Amino acid sequence: MARYFEDTEVGDVYELDGRYEVTEAEVKEFAEKYDPQPFHLDEEAARDSIFGSLAASGWHTASMCMRLLVDGFLEPETSMGARGVDELRWKRPVHPGDTLRVEVEVLDKRESESRPEVGHVRMETRGYNQDDELVIRWEGLGMQRRREAGE
Amino acid sequence: MARYFEDTEVGDVYELDGRYEVTEAEVKEFAEKYDPQPFHLDEEAARDSIFGSLAASGWHTASMCMRLLVDGFLEPETSMGARGVDELRWKRPVHPGDTLRVEVEVLDKRESESRPEVGHVRMETRGYNQDDELVIRWEGLGMQRRREAGE
Repeated sequence: MARYFEDTEVGDVYELDGRYEVTEAEVKEFAEKYDPQPFHLDEEAARDSIFGSLAASGWHTASMCMRLLVDGFLEPETSMGARGVDELRWKRPVHPGDTLRVEVEVLDKRESESRPEVGHVRMETRGYNQDDELVIRWEGLGMQRRREAGE
Repeated sequence: MARYFEDTEVGDVYELDGRYEVTEAEVKEFAEKYDPQPFHLDEEAARDSIFGSLAASGWHTASMCMRLLVDGFLEPETSMGARGVDELRWKRPVHPGDTLRVEVEVLDKRESESRPEVGHVRMETRGYNQDDELVIRWEGLGMQRRREAGE
């Protein structure tokens, strides 16, 4: 049974089972393509930066957590994309060798005024490393399909 | 001459020269890795979605714009990373064949209270397509090296 807008309750927390292992090869591959700053590419440059050692691009960290959301939370039947993100914060650096996991909390929901098949859901995504330290958080402005009016 | 915190003025707007061509292969490659939702992977599924045709992951759009920022705006001597992002909005879908460009506007700046070498700079990044339509915007909470106290 897919989870529709009507099934989503403010205050619900989902602890996802998935884990994402961060590798040096992938950190460098992402950085070379999208964020080629020295502290994401070079160990020595990273040592002299606020990161202390080679660190994933913040966009890479968000993308890895997104993969955990798609695999373990969002459903193709009811997930309709997102309008944006508020208050994204990179709380700690993510390094090769880290393992990420994700929690989701429903902060708010409201029906779309213009589109009867759409519900707006504000959800906090929190990404943690293997030491249960928060590394990233954001509030996603997601759209979820409505069961009643949309069927 | 590198641009330090002291050189950054609130209200300054930078129109970057770089362009990023969005290809179908890259849209699908990114989506397979980080955001494997049907509307980012499959033309037919995208046609039935709010995107209308195959659309880049929003995280991919942000990452492509980040590449333009790194190539054309951020400087390795003075860019110290970012604490986060506020009010990221995906205003229009990005499709294969689109060409992206980026503008940056300095919204606010203040000296760090705890670290004399750091200045905090709030900057709006705006990404446009080849028709000058805004496709993404966000406010980045960047850190920029200070010249005086840090040297």
